Amino acid sequence: MSRLDSMIRRLEAQRTTLNDAVARVRDRDGVALEFGLGNGRTYDHLREAMAGRDIYVFDRQIAAHPDCIPPDDRLYLGDLFETLPRAVADLAGRAVLAHMDIGTGDKAESVALSRRAAPLVAQLLAPGGVVVSDQPLDGMADFSPLPLPKGVKPGRIYLYERI
Amino acid sequence: MSRLDSMIRRLEAQRTTLNDAVARVRDRDGVALEFGLGNGRTYDHLREAMAGRDIYVFDRQIAAHPDCIPPDDRLYLGDLFETLPRAVADLAGRAVLAHMDIGTGDKAESVALSRRAAPLVAQLLAPGGVVVSDQPLDGMADFSPLPLPKGVKPGRIYLYERI
Repeated sequence: MSRLDSMIRRLEAQRTTLNDAVARVRDRDGVALEFGLGNGRTYDHLREAMAGRDIYVFDRQIAAHPDCIPPDDRLYLGDLFETLPRAVADLAGRAVLAHMDIGTGDKAESVALSRRAAPLVAQLLAPGGVVVSDQPLDGMADFSPLPLPKGVKPGRIYLYERI
Repeated sequence: MSRLDSMIRRLEAQRTTLNDAVARVRDRDGVALEFGLGNGRTYDHLREAMAGRDIYVFDRQIAAHPDCIPPDDRLYLGDLFETLPRAVADLAGRAVLAHMDIGTGDKAESVALSRRAAPLVAQLLAPGGVVVSDQPLDGMADFSPLPLPKGVKPGRIYLYERI
Protein backbone atom coordinates (compact mmCIF):
# COMPACT_ATOMS: atom_id res chain seq x y z
CA MET A 1 0.00 0.00 0.00
CA SER A 2 1.47 3.37 -1.01
CA ARG A 3 1.48 6.47 1.16
CA LEU A 4 -1.19 7.86 -1.17
CA ASP A 5 -3.37 4.80 -0.46
CA SER A 6 -2.87 5.05 3.31
CA MET A 7 -3.61 8.77 3.35
CA ILE A 8 -6.91 8.17 1.53
CA ARG A 9 -7.81 5.35 3.95
CA ARG A 10 -6.92 7.46 6.97
CA LEU A 11 -9.01 10.43 5.80
CA GLU A 12 -11.95 8.16 4.91
CA ALA A 13 -11.80 6.46 8.33
CA GLN A 14 -11.71 9.90 9.94
CA ARG A 15 -14.71 11.15 7.96
CA THR A 16 -16.82 8.01 8.47
CA THR A 17 -16.11 7.93 12.20
CA LEU A 18 -16.71 11.66 12.69
CA ASN A 19 -20.04 11.37 10.83
CA ASP A 20 -20.99 8.42 13.03
CA ALA A 21 -20.10 10.37 16.19
CA VAL A 22 -22.09 13.40 15.00
CA ALA A 23 -25.14 11.19 14.35
CA ARG A 24 -24.86 9.66 17.84
CA VAL A 25 -25.22 13.05 19.56
CA ARG A 26 -27.58 14.72 17.07
CA ASP A 27 -30.48 15.00 19.56
CA ARG A 28 -28.40 16.09 22.55
CA ASP A 29 -27.63 19.64 23.69
CA GLY A 30 -23.99 20.52 24.17
CA VAL A 31 -20.85 21.82 22.53
CA ALA A 32 -18.18 20.04 20.47
CA LEU A 33 -14.41 20.06 20.95
CA GLU A 34 -11.64 19.82 18.38
CA PHE A 35 -8.16 19.05 19.75
CA GLY A 36 -5.54 19.81 17.10
CA LEU A 37 -6.82 22.26 14.50
CA GLY A 38 -3.93 21.61 12.09
CA ASN A 39 -4.91 22.74 8.59
CA GLY A 40 -8.56 22.98 9.69
CA ARG A 41 -9.90 20.15 7.51
CA THR A 42 -11.76 18.18 10.18
CA TYR A 43 -12.86 21.38 11.95
CA ASP A 44 -14.45 22.45 8.66
CA HIS A 45 -16.11 19.05 8.38
CA LEU A 46 -17.52 19.19 11.92
CA ARG A 47 -18.67 22.77 11.37
CA GLU A 48 -20.71 21.60 8.36
CA ALA A 49 -21.96 18.37 9.96
CA MET A 50 -22.93 20.10 13.25
CA ALA A 51 -24.16 23.43 11.87
CA GLY A 52 -25.36 25.71 14.67
CA ARG A 53 -23.40 23.94 17.40
CA ASP A 54 -20.51 25.73 19.15
CA ILE A 55 -17.17 24.04 18.45
CA TYR A 56 -14.28 24.90 20.77
CA VAL A 57 -10.85 24.40 19.26
CA PHE A 58 -7.52 23.68 20.94
CA ASP A 59 -4.12 24.03 19.33
CA ARG A 60 -0.63 25.19 20.12
CA GLN A 61 -0.73 27.73 17.29
CA ILE A 62 -2.81 28.60 14.24
CA ALA A 63 -1.61 26.93 11.02
CA ALA A 64 -5.03 26.49 9.37
CA HIS A 65 -6.41 27.76 6.09
CA PRO A 66 -7.79 31.31 6.70
CA ASP A 67 -11.36 30.04 6.06
CA CYS A 68 -10.97 27.44 8.83
CA ILE A 69 -9.95 29.61 11.78
CA PRO A 70 -12.48 29.50 14.63
CA PRO A 71 -13.80 32.70 16.24
CA ASP A 72 -11.53 34.03 19.02
CA ASP A 73 -14.03 33.22 21.77
CA ARG A 74 -14.03 29.52 20.80
CA LEU A 75 -10.28 29.15 20.58
CA TYR A 76 -7.95 27.82 23.28
CA LEU A 77 -4.50 28.65 22.00
CA GLY A 78 -1.31 27.44 23.64
CA ASP A 79 0.03 24.41 25.48
CA LEU A 80 -2.75 21.86 25.97
CA PHE A 81 -1.96 21.40 29.66
CA GLU A 82 -2.37 25.12 30.25
CA THR A 83 -5.52 25.53 28.14
CA LEU A 84 -7.32 22.34 29.24
CA PRO A 85 -7.68 23.38 32.92
CA ARG A 86 -9.03 26.77 31.75
CA ALA A 87 -11.49 25.00 29.48
CA VAL A 88 -12.59 22.76 32.35
CA ALA A 89 -13.36 25.91 34.37
CA ASP A 90 -15.41 27.28 31.44
CA LEU A 91 -17.12 24.21 30.00
CA ALA A 92 -17.03 21.27 32.45
CA GLY A 93 -19.51 18.55 31.47
CA ARG A 94 -20.92 20.56 28.54
CA ALA A 95 -19.37 18.74 25.54
CA VAL A 96 -21.17 15.92 23.73
CA LEU A 97 -18.44 15.28 21.16
CA ALA A 98 -14.64 15.55 21.18
CA HIS A 99 -12.28 14.94 18.28
CA MET A 100 -8.73 14.31 19.45
CA ASP A 101 -6.19 14.60 16.65
CA ILE A 102 -3.08 15.68 18.49
CA GLY A 103 -0.47 13.39 16.94
CA THR A 104 3.06 14.75 16.83
CA GLY A 105 4.39 12.41 14.13
CA ASP A 106 6.05 10.21 16.78
CA LYS A 107 3.69 7.31 17.62
CA ALA A 108 4.73 6.65 21.26
CA GLU A 109 4.76 10.39 22.02
CA SER A 110 1.31 10.86 20.42
CA VAL A 111 -0.22 8.02 22.45
CA ALA A 112 1.34 9.37 25.67
CA LEU A 113 0.07 12.90 24.92
CA SER A 114 -3.47 11.68 24.20
CA ARG A 115 -3.58 9.54 27.35
CA ARG A 116 -2.23 12.40 29.47
CA ALA A 117 -4.91 14.75 28.06
CA ALA A 118 -7.76 12.24 28.30
CA PRO A 119 -8.69 12.70 32.00
CA LEU A 120 -9.05 16.45 31.43
CA VAL A 121 -11.01 15.88 28.21
CA ALA A 122 -13.26 13.53 30.23
CA GLN A 123 -14.06 16.43 32.61
CA LEU A 124 -15.27 18.48 29.65
CA LEU A 125 -17.62 15.76 28.42
CA ALA A 126 -21.18 15.05 29.48
CA PRO A 127 -21.91 11.39 30.35
CA GLY A 128 -22.65 9.56 27.10
CA GLY A 129 -20.57 12.07 25.11
CA VAL A 130 -18.46 10.54 22.34
CA VAL A 131 -14.75 10.81 21.57
CA VAL A 132 -13.14 10.23 18.18
CA SER A 133 -9.39 9.85 18.66
CA ASP A 134 -6.49 9.14 16.34
CA GLN A 135 -4.74 7.45 19.28
CA PRO A 136 -6.00 4.59 21.50
CA LEU A 137 -7.46 5.44 24.92
CA ASP A 138 -8.24 1.80 25.74
CA GLY A 139 -8.32 0.88 29.40
CA MET A 140 -8.75 4.46 30.63
CA ALA A 141 -11.26 4.82 33.47
CA ASP A 142 -13.61 7.34 31.87
CA PHE A 143 -13.87 5.88 28.37
CA SER A 144 -15.66 2.83 27.05
CA PRO A 145 -14.92 1.70 23.45
CA LEU A 146 -17.79 1.97 20.95
CA PRO A 147 -18.01 -0.19 17.81
CA LEU A 148 -16.45 1.51 14.79
CA PRO A 149 -18.80 2.29 11.90
CA LYS A 150 -19.01 -0.18 9.00
CA GLY A 151 -16.01 -0.09 6.67
CA VAL A 152 -13.57 1.38 9.20
CA LYS A 153 -10.72 -0.97 10.02
CA PRO A 154 -9.88 -1.27 13.74
CA GLY A 155 -6.64 0.51 14.63
CA ARG A 156 -7.08 3.20 11.99
CA ILE A 157 -9.08 5.45 14.37
CA TYR A 158 -10.74 5.04 17.78
CA LEU A 159 -14.24 5.72 19.10
CA TYR A 160 -15.24 5.93 22.78
CA GLU A 161 -18.17 6.86 24.97
CA ARG A 162 -17.67 8.96 28.09
CA ILE A 163 -18.95 6.72 30.89
CA MET B 1 -18.69 19.92 0.80
CA SER B 2 -16.15 20.25 3.60
CA ARG B 3 -12.41 20.59 3.13
CA LEU B 4 -12.11 17.02 4.38
CA ASP B 5 -14.50 15.88 1.63
CA SER B 6 -12.63 17.80 -1.07
CA MET B 7 -9.25 16.50 0.06
CA ILE B 8 -10.53 12.91 -0.16
CA ARG B 9 -11.97 13.57 -3.64
CA ARG B 10 -8.77 15.23 -4.82
CA LEU B 11 -6.57 12.36 -3.61
CA GLU B 12 -8.93 9.76 -5.09
CA ALA B 13 -8.95 11.57 -8.45
CA GLN B 14 -5.16 11.71 -8.30
CA ARG B 15 -4.83 8.00 -7.55
CA THR B 16 -7.37 6.86 -10.14
CA THR B 17 -5.82 9.02 -12.85
CA LEU B 18 -2.24 8.04 -12.00
CA ASN B 19 -3.24 4.35 -12.10
CA ASP B 20 -4.91 4.90 -15.48
CA ALA B 21 -1.79 6.64 -16.83
CA VAL B 22 0.46 3.85 -15.54
CA ALA B 23 -1.73 1.24 -17.25
CA ARG B 24 -1.58 3.17 -20.54
CA VAL B 25 2.22 2.96 -20.72
CA ARG B 26 2.67 -0.45 -19.10
CA ASP B 27 4.09 -2.07 -22.24
CA ARG B 28 6.33 0.77 -23.29
CA ASP B 29 9.99 1.32 -22.44
CA GLY B 30 10.92 4.64 -20.88
CA VAL B 31 11.30 6.57 -17.65
CA ALA B 32 8.73 8.42 -15.53
CA LEU B 33 8.86 12.01 -14.25
CA GLU B 34 7.43 13.48 -11.04
CA PHE B 35 7.26 17.29 -10.91
CA GLY B 36 6.73 18.45 -7.34
CA LEU B 37 7.82 15.81 -4.83
CA GLY B 38 6.13 17.53 -1.87
CA ASN B 39 5.60 15.04 0.94
CA GLY B 40 6.39 12.18 -1.45
CA ARG B 41 2.93 10.55 -1.42
CA THR B 42 2.40 10.31 -5.18
CA TYR B 43 6.07 9.51 -5.80
CA ASP B 44 5.64 6.56 -3.43
CA HIS B 45 2.50 5.56 -5.31
CA LEU B 46 4.21 5.69 -8.71
CA ARG B 47 7.21 3.82 -7.33
CA GLU B 48 4.89 0.97 -6.29
CA ALA B 49 2.73 1.06 -9.42
CA MET B 50 5.75 1.21 -11.78
CA ALA B 51 8.16 -1.03 -9.90
CA GLY B 52 11.46 -1.36 -11.76
CA ARG B 53 11.03 1.81 -13.80
CA ASP B 54 13.31 4.82 -13.21
CA ILE B 55 11.41 7.82 -11.86
CA TYR B 56 13.13 11.21 -12.09
CA VAL B 57 11.93 13.76 -9.57
CA PHE B 58 11.93 17.55 -9.72
CA ASP B 59 11.46 19.89 -6.79
CA ARG B 60 12.77 23.14 -5.43
CA GLN B 61 13.80 21.45 -2.18
CA ILE B 62 13.29 18.19 -0.31
CA ALA B 63 10.36 18.25 2.15
CA ALA B 64 9.34 14.61 1.79
CA HIS B 65 9.08 11.81 4.31
CA PRO B 66 12.57 10.19 4.65
CA ASP B 67 11.22 6.96 3.07
CA CYS B 68 10.12 8.88 -0.03
CA ILE B 69 13.32 10.61 -1.08
CA PRO B 70 14.54 9.53 -4.52
CA PRO B 71 18.14 8.44 -5.10
CA ASP B 72 20.49 11.38 -5.79
CA ASP B 73 21.03 10.39 -9.43
CA ARG B 74 17.29 10.64 -10.15
CA LEU B 75 16.75 13.98 -8.46
CA TYR B 76 16.67 17.41 -10.12
CA LEU B 77 16.79 19.83 -7.23
CA GLY B 78 16.33 23.58 -7.63
CA ASP B 79 14.39 26.05 -9.74
CA LEU B 80 12.39 24.21 -12.39
CA PHE B 81 13.57 26.49 -15.18
CA GLU B 82 17.18 25.72 -14.33
CA THR B 83 16.70 21.96 -13.88
CA LEU B 84 14.35 21.36 -16.84
CA PRO B 85 16.91 22.36 -19.52
CA ARG B 86 19.49 20.09 -17.82
CA ALA B 87 16.96 17.25 -17.80
CA VAL B 88 16.23 17.82 -21.49
CA ALA B 89 19.96 17.42 -22.17
CA ASP B 90 19.96 14.15 -20.19
CA LEU B 91 16.62 12.56 -21.04
CA ALA B 92 15.04 14.15 -24.13
CA GLY B 93 12.24 11.98 -25.53
CA ARG B 94 12.80 9.18 -23.00
CA ALA B 95 9.81 9.66 -20.64
CA VAL B 96 6.52 7.79 -21.12
CA LEU B 97 4.76 9.30 -18.10
CA ALA B 98 4.91 12.67 -16.34
CA HIS B 99 3.02 13.70 -13.23
CA MET B 100 2.88 17.49 -12.85
CA ASP B 101 1.85 18.57 -9.37
CA ILE B 102 3.55 21.92 -9.03
CA GLY B 103 0.73 24.01 -7.55
CA THR B 104 1.84 26.89 -5.36
CA GLY B 105 -1.48 27.39 -3.54
CA ASP B 106 -2.33 30.33 -5.81
CA LYS B 107 -4.51 29.07 -8.69
CA ALA B 108 -3.53 31.61 -11.40
CA GLU B 109 0.14 31.30 -10.52
CA SER B 110 -0.04 27.48 -10.57
CA VAL B 111 -1.68 27.43 -14.01
CA ALA B 112 0.92 29.91 -15.35
CA LEU B 113 3.79 27.85 -13.91
CA SER B 114 2.47 24.59 -15.39
CA ARG B 115 1.93 26.16 -18.82
CA ARG B 116 5.38 27.72 -18.79
CA ALA B 117 6.96 24.35 -17.88
CA ALA B 118 4.86 22.31 -20.34
CA PRO B 119 6.92 22.92 -23.54
CA LEU B 120 10.06 21.72 -21.73
CA VAL B 121 8.19 18.74 -20.26
CA ALA B 122 7.03 17.96 -23.81
CA GLN B 123 10.67 17.71 -24.91
CA LEU B 124 11.27 15.06 -22.25
CA LEU B 125 8.34 12.92 -23.38
CA ALA B 126 8.25 10.28 -26.09
CA PRO B 127 5.37 10.62 -28.58
CA GLY B 128 2.32 8.95 -27.03
CA GLY B 129 3.64 9.55 -23.51
CA VAL B 130 1.00 10.58 -20.97
CA VAL B 131 0.82 13.55 -18.62
CA VAL B 132 -1.24 13.71 -15.43
CA SER B 133 -1.45 17.33 -14.30
CA ASP B 134 -3.17 19.13 -11.44
CA GLN B 135 -3.45 22.17 -13.72
CA PRO B 136 -5.02 22.46 -17.19
CA LEU B 137 -2.73 22.39 -20.23
CA ASP B 138 -5.63 22.64 -22.69
CA GLY B 139 -4.85 24.23 -26.04
CA MET B 140 -1.09 23.72 -25.78
CA ALA B 141 0.55 22.58 -29.02
CA ASP B 142 2.18 19.37 -27.77
CA PHE B 143 -0.66 17.98 -25.67
CA SER B 144 -3.93 16.37 -26.62
CA PRO B 145 -6.54 15.75 -23.86
CA LEU B 146 -7.33 12.12 -23.00
CA PRO B 147 -10.64 11.00 -21.47
CA LEU B 148 -10.46 10.86 -17.67
CA PRO B 149 -10.97 7.46 -16.07
CA LYS B 150 -14.46 6.52 -14.84
CA GLY B 151 -15.47 8.25 -11.61
CA VAL B 152 -13.10 11.21 -11.97
CA LYS B 153 -14.92 14.50 -12.32
CA PRO B 154 -13.56 16.82 -15.05
CA GLY B 155 -11.68 19.78 -13.60
CA ARG B 156 -10.39 17.85 -10.60
CA ILE B 157 -7.29 16.63 -12.48
CA TYR B 158 -6.13 16.60 -16.13
CA LEU B 159 -4.84 13.89 -18.46
CA TYR B 160 -3.03 14.46 -21.76
CA GLU B 161 -1.17 12.56 -24.43
CA ARG B 162 2.09 13.90 -25.86
CA ILE B 163 1.33 14.28 -29.57
